[in-house]
Amino acid sequence: MNPSSPAALALPHLAGLHAYAPGMQPAEPGWVKLNTNECPYPPSPRVAEALLREIGSDGALLRLYPNPPSMPLRRIIARLHGLGEEHVCVGNGSDDVLNLLVRCFCGPEAAAGFARPSYSLYPVLVAVQNGRSAALDFDRSMSLPHEAIAAAQPRILFLTSPNAPTGVGFANAELERVLGACGGVLVVDEAYAPFADENAASLVARHPRLVVTRSLSKAYALAGLRVGYALAHPEVIGLLDRVRDSYNVNRLSQAAAAAALEDGDYYSGVIARIKATRDRCWREWSERRGWFTYRSAANFLLTEPRNARGLSGPAVARAACDFLADRRILVRHFPGHPLTESFLRVSVGTDGEMAALDRALDAWLETGGS
Amino acid sequence: MNPSSPAALALPHLAGLHAYAPGMQPAEPGWVKLNTNECPYPPSPRVAEALLREIGSDGALLRLYPNPPSMPLRRIIARLHGLGEEHVCVGNGSDDVLNLLVRCFCGPEAAAGFARPSYSLYPVLVAVQNGRSAALDFDRSMSLPHEAIAAAQPRILFLTSPNAPTGVGFANAELERVLGACGGVLVVDEAYAPFADENAASLVARHPRLVVTRSLSKAYALAGLRVGYALAHPEVIGLLDRVRDSYNVNRLSQAAAAAALEDGDYYSGVIARIKATRDRCWREWSERRGWFTYRSAANFLLTEPRNARGLSGPAVARAACDFLADRRILVRHFPGHPLTESFLRVSVGTDGEMAALDRALDAWLETGGS
Repeated sequence: MNPSSPAALALPHLAGLHAYAPGMQPAEPGWVKLNTNECPYPPSPRVAEALLREIGSDGALLRLYPNPPSMPLRRIIARLHGLGEEHVCVGNGSDDVLNLLVRCFCGPEAAAGFARPSYSLYPVLVAVQNGRSAALDFDRSMSLPHEAIAAAQPRILFLTSPNAPTGVGFANAELERVLGACGGVLVVDEAYAPFADENAASLVARHPRLVVTRSLSKAYALAGLRVGYALAHPEVIGLLDRVRDSYNVNRLSQAAAAAALEDGDYYSGVIARIKATRDRCWREWSERRGWFTYRSAANFLLTEPRNARGLSGPAVARAACDFLADRRILVRHFPGHPLTESFLRVSVGTDGEMAALDRALDAWLETGGS
Repeated sequence: MNPSSPAALALPHLAGLHAYAPGMQPAEPGWVKLNTNECPYPPSPRVAEALLREIGSDGALLRLYPNPPSMPLRRIIARLHGLGEEHVCVGNGSDDVLNLLVRCFCGPEAAAGFARPSYSLYPVLVAVQNGRSAALDFDRSMSLPHEAIAAAQPRILFLTSPNAPTGVGFANAELERVLGACGGVLVVDEAYAPFADENAASLVARHPRLVVTRSLSKAYALAGLRVGYALAHPEVIGLLDRVRDSYNVNRLSQAAAAAALEDGDYYSGVIARIKATRDRCWREWSERRGWFTYRSAANFLLTEPRNARGLSGPAVARAACDFLADRRILVRHFPGHPLTESFLRVSVGTDGEMAALDRALDAWLETGGS
C-alpha cells in the first residue's frame, strides 16, 4: 500500500461514490435565487426574538451543551401533530433523519427503495452505507409505480410527497395502498407538505411501519439553521436515538425551531402567499406560454420550456438555465434523468422575483431561445 | 414478522446497541456543572456580535442554506494551523467528524482501534457501523500501549490526546512512534489540546495517515453550537466531504466559530485562567487531601477520592459523586472500567465553583464519606 495515499485505506465501496450535489449557494448578494426551494420570506419575527434571548448579552449560554434529545422541541412538535413525544425525533435538518433511517434499515442484505426522479440524496445515502438499492421509475404521469414497489419489497422505501422535482403529491389513500403491498418501512419525506392540501402525519399513529419526515428549511424559512424531524412509531424513534449523534441539534437551532413552530398564524400567511404565486405562475406558464408544467403541491414548479420555434428538449432547458444564470437568476436543471432533462425546476419566489424571471424568459425568447 | 413491531425490520447489529450516554444536562439553572468539560467562562464577545450580525433585524438570512463546505470557516482554520484549506473539514461538532472517519475507514473487515479508558463514543460509533473493533487497554500509568497497538494493526486508530478521562497528554514523539509502527490511519482527537503544552497539528502536513480533530466545545466555550473540525491529508478530507451531509454546519454556527477562532487573544486569557485553576486544584487534592490525581493537560482532573477512613474504591467514588449531586454539584463517575471506577472526573470550573466543590467535599468527609 502506498503510504502517501491514505485514500487507499478507505472502505472500497467509497471509491466510486459521488457526493450529493447541492444547488449553487452564491456567497455574495444580488442573485434571484430560485434554485434550492428556500422560502422567499423571512422567518417569523419570534425566531429572531428567541435567538436573541438564547444569546443574551454575552453568549454565556452557548458554552453549555444543548439538550441532547431536543426534548422541549420534541414536545412542541408532538403537540402540533397530536402525537406523544415518543413519536418524535429531531435532526440536524431532515437530511440527518433520512441518513439515520438508512443506517437503521438498509445494508448489503436490506434494500432501500426510492422512486426516480425524486430527491437525489437517497441513492447517495444508500451508497455511503454500502446498501442495496432498488430504484423504482416513474413514468411521465408521475403517479406511484405500485407494481414495481410491490415487486421490489424493499426493507425501507423513500417516497417524497409532494415529490421533488415534480411537485406532484400523493394522496394518503395511495400511501396506505403502498403500506398494504409492502412489508417494509415506508418513509414519506414531507419536506414540502405544508404547501399541499393533504399530508400523512395523521397516519403515523395507526401505521407502525410509516415514518413521516419534515423540514423547517422550506415553509418555515429556516434552511440556514438545519432542523428537521421524524414522526414514527416509538420503536423507530428509539432506533434513531441510538444511532444519532447525542448532541445533533445545537442550542440556537432548537430555540429558533421552537419559536417558529409556535407561530402557526405567521406561517399560514406565508404559505398562502407562496401558493397564490405558485398557482398564478402555473397558469401563466401553462396557458400564456404553453409550456407543459406539472400541477404542484409544493413551493416550486417543474416546467418544460419551449424556445421561440416551439421546441423543447434537454438543450433548450439547458440554454434557458444558462441564460438566466448569466442574468443572476438561478433555477435548477436536472440533466440526469430522461423525465427531467427537458425541464427546469423553479422555486416559487416573491411576486417581484417571479416577475423578474418572466422578463428574463421573455428576453431569452427574443434571442430565439437557444 | 410481527407487523406491529417495526424494530424487527432494523439491521440485526443494532439490536444490542447501547447509545452513547452523554453527561447530565440539567434543564434548569442553579447547578455547579463540572461534568461535561464545558468552559466556565463565556465565549469571546465577538461571538455574540457575529451572531447578531448574521441574524440582522428580522432573521432574513436564516431562510437561506448555509455555505455547504463551511468554506470561509475552513480558510480561517487553515490559516490558524499554517495549512491549506484542502487540509480542513468542518463538522457539526467533532463528534460528526469522528463519525465520518468511522464511516470511511471502519467496517466488518476493517477494524477501528481505540484505547481504554478513553472517550466512550468511539466504540458506539464502531458498533453503529457494524465494524470490527480493537480495544487497547491502558495500565494505571496511562502511557500508550505501543505493543498492543502494533500487534492490533487497526485500519484506523483513535487516540485522545490529552486523553479523557485521565487528562494525560501524549508527546508528538510518541504519536510519531505509533505512526511508524502502524500502517493505518491515526486519528488524534485533540478536543482538549488547547490546554496542553504540545499538540499534533504541526505533524499533519508531513504525515498523510494522520488526522487531527479539534472541537470548539471546550476551550472556545461553544459547546452549545456544535462545531469541530479535522486537519488531514487532502485525500482524507475528500473522503469526509463525500460522506458528510452537504449542509452539516448551520449558518449561525459557522459565523460564531469564525468569530471565536479569530479572537485568539481572548481565548489565551481564558485558557491561562483554566490552567491556573486546574494546577492549583491538582496540588490541593494531591497534597492537602492526599488523593491520587493524574497530572492533567486538559480542562478536567481525574481524582481518586478517599473517605474519612482513608479508603478509596468504586463505592467511595460513587458515594462522593452522589453526595455532590444532592448538593447540585455535578461531576462524572465512570464505573465501567477498572481504571476509572474508583475515580471522579471533575471539569475545571471557575475558582468560585471549585471552592464550592471543595466545601462540599469537606462536608462529605465530615459525614464519613460513604
